[in-house]
Amino acid sequence: MIAGIEVNHNLSAVAGVRVAAVESSIRYKNRLDLVLFEFAPCSRVAGVFTRNAFCAAPVMLAKKHLESSGGECRYLLINTGNANAGTGEKGLRDALACCEALAQATGVPVNSVLPFSTGVIGENLPVEKIALGIPKAVSALADSNWSEAAKGIMTTDTRPKSASAIMNVGGQTVTITGIAKGAGMIKPNMATMLSFIATDALIEQALLQKLLEGAVQRSFNRITVDGDTSTNDACILAASGSSAVTISEADAASYQLFNTALQGLLLELAQSIIRDAEGAKKFVTVDVREGGNSGECLMVAYAIAESPLVKTALSASDPNWGRILAAVGRAGVPDLDVSRINISLGEISIVENGTLAPSYTEAAGQAVMNQGDIDIIVRLARGSAQERVWTSDLSEEYVRINASYRS
Amino acid sequence: MIAGIEVNHNLSAVAGVRVAAVESSIRYKNRLDLVLFEFAPCSRVAGVFTRNAFCAAPVMLAKKHLESSGGECRYLLINTGNANAGTGEKGLRDALACCEALAQATGVPVNSVLPFSTGVIGENLPVEKIALGIPKAVSALADSNWSEAAKGIMTTDTRPKSASAIMNVGGQTVTITGIAKGAGMIKPNMATMLSFIATDALIEQALLQKLLEGAVQRSFNRITVDGDTSTNDACILAASGSSAVTISEADAASYQLFNTALQGLLLELAQSIIRDAEGAKKFVTVDVREGGNSGECLMVAYAIAESPLVKTALSASDPNWGRILAAVGRAGVPDLDVSRINISLGEISIVENGTLAPSYTEAAGQAVMNQGDIDIIVRLARGSAQERVWTSDLSEEYVRINASYRS
Repeated sequence: MIAGIEVNHNLSAVAGVRVAAVESSIRYKNRLDLVLFEFAPCSRVAGVFTRNAFCAAPVMLAKKHLESSGGECRYLLINTGNANAGTGEKGLRDALACCEALAQATGVPVNSVLPFSTGVIGENLPVEKIALGIPKAVSALADSNWSEAAKGIMTTDTRPKSASAIMNVGGQTVTITGIAKGAGMIKPNMATMLSFIATDALIEQALLQKLLEGAVQRSFNRITVDGDTSTNDACILAASGSSAVTISEADAASYQLFNTALQGLLLELAQSIIRDAEGAKKFVTVDVREGGNSGECLMVAYAIAESPLVKTALSASDPNWGRILAAVGRAGVPDLDVSRINISLGEISIVENGTLAPSYTEAAGQAVMNQGDIDIIVRLARGSAQERVWTSDLSEEYVRINASYRS
Repeated sequence: MIAGIEVNHNLSAVAGVRVAAVESSIRYKNRLDLVLFEFAPCSRVAGVFTRNAFCAAPVMLAKKHLESSGGECRYLLINTGNANAGTGEKGLRDALACCEALAQATGVPVNSVLPFSTGVIGENLPVEKIALGIPKAVSALADSNWSEAAKGIMTTDTRPKSASAIMNVGGQTVTITGIAKGAGMIKPNMATMLSFIATDALIEQALLQKLLEGAVQRSFNRITVDGDTSTNDACILAASGSSAVTISEADAASYQLFNTALQGLLLELAQSIIRDAEGAKKFVTVDVREGGNSGECLMVAYAIAESPLVKTALSASDPNWGRILAAVGRAGVPDLDVSRINISLGEISIVENGTLAPSYTEAAGQAVMNQGDIDIIVRLARGSAQERVWTSDLSEEYVRINASYRS
């Protein structure tokens, strides 16, 4: 796909990284619900987290441990079935207890463990069940368990999300493998629902954090299912250094290669969340061009991507371009001259100079809307900024899932 | 209800105002789809209109005529079945042609006619059908046709929306009667979908405009069904002066009485839109208190009122308070101290100091959620500002309606 980089879904093991996924009956029986990552000593870990003011206890603790350890973390402990959010002081004590149990079992300092939880908000974490699962998970650690981990972090997801990128740096192979979860409550803000990525390159922590933030900004932070930002979003990138390849800004070529591969991998994971969006049948790219700045492109893109009326029309494969036009008009762009705006559905021009394109036919619009992948391209004629956002349609099935989830 | 004011749904005629609703087959047969209002000479008319940058041709023309006539308008011409939006220059010519036909039939200047359209966006207005309907409508004008007019402006509405307020000003009776339409694409911004209100009081135009804007701000501008602001929103208030009662700021008591009645009437109409929201079974009041300012109260109120996850939980009568909490957290209030936030569902405290209230039981939460009218009360503990917003639940029926509308 990208020169020198191979991105694929056959997950490659990452030297210096072991993974396990076990059943702990946290909410349901017979389900992988506890996932463990182990990084070789001297690994460096970077992370970005939800900006929701009500961030969950594990998010608070993971941020604290990441900071106090200077990114020298050894374990990620992830449970599904319970978000440990809105649980106050007790939630923090529970998350810490889980980290302590793992630290004791593995002989590492407690701040070498980062905790992650996803599931129902507002219920107390079943610490005993997690503590019982920890020894099982430690015993199961292997470098080949990435696929099981991708399954183990799923909640309302219908399929696991994962990808690997392999590149050649100066004759040496460097691998990046990542997994992600998420299908609803998706409008990440500096993070996704949950995503864990590891590489065998050697990268110092500040650079690792910079690389992660840059890649997240144009991948997980550009998708929306329903505009709801979760309390538990987190995205972690670990570098084990086990490949003996060092990535640094001093070597611009390898840095650029790695950065490109990382961005491609995160975009692949982010887009796989949209493809699995709750109840969705469409994968929609909203591409806003010719903006005066990036901010106004995003205002327009999100107004379209989060409009219930646009999304229900997409669900019905209805080329109801008037709803797209109405969303652009209410996006809040100052002094918007609608008479200069052009909109197209894929290759089909629908709006020219603010009104219906003379060449447009309902049959042509319908043909685009019948497809599973739909591009909505808006040209604002105000400048040269461009932003792309990915979203899904809004179906009766989305409502059914979210009206029944929890019960 | 309010001292000295009677608000009711038995529509009272307004002296100096005649109304007609006729069938013109604009989109469907056998349906009232053309509505005409006639105001006595010397009436004053005020209006507020959508802020959507893609405002429809009739909105542009109505604003222009309102301004050039100084509010001395004699007729409102309203059609359903076609919004005449996104129709460019031709749309403007079409709207003007309809105004001209009516002006000719009634012998008034063309800028005494304000046009309004609602329905599908992006199709050309069937001017001939409207022109054929105009003489029928003129012949049908009567002061008793308010109920027919309320039916005649409906689109996806399941029931007409109307109310009257009657008050006694210095021994004289003053009447305000209004109608409204709207059920989806509802997040008015300085206006509602369409609402037409008239009074027999004598009020000079600048004051009439001020009264209307003030009343709209806390009624139509505080409701949301889906966050989508229409291209065609408009709200008109006419004062015929036929009652011989003058409302002016110089007489503070009567001014206050009228203002209170007008606000009560608009709130009644706005709330009836929410009660008829597409697919909705719940009428939800989001009441945000103790804010540092009005703006942050509205940010929190709309984050809750427009959250698909909160709205689907409401649809399922699920007291999923974690979703409310997550919406508060992502609303974007700067430096929000979540440990001071309290949330209740009606009388039931659900969140105290940012975490689950000790007294909360699922049964108590469930009992509130089973009701048709639900109050969500959030206390931010940051100041004394308060804002209320009204919304509905999000049901599979909403998606069904909006996926099939137009086809």
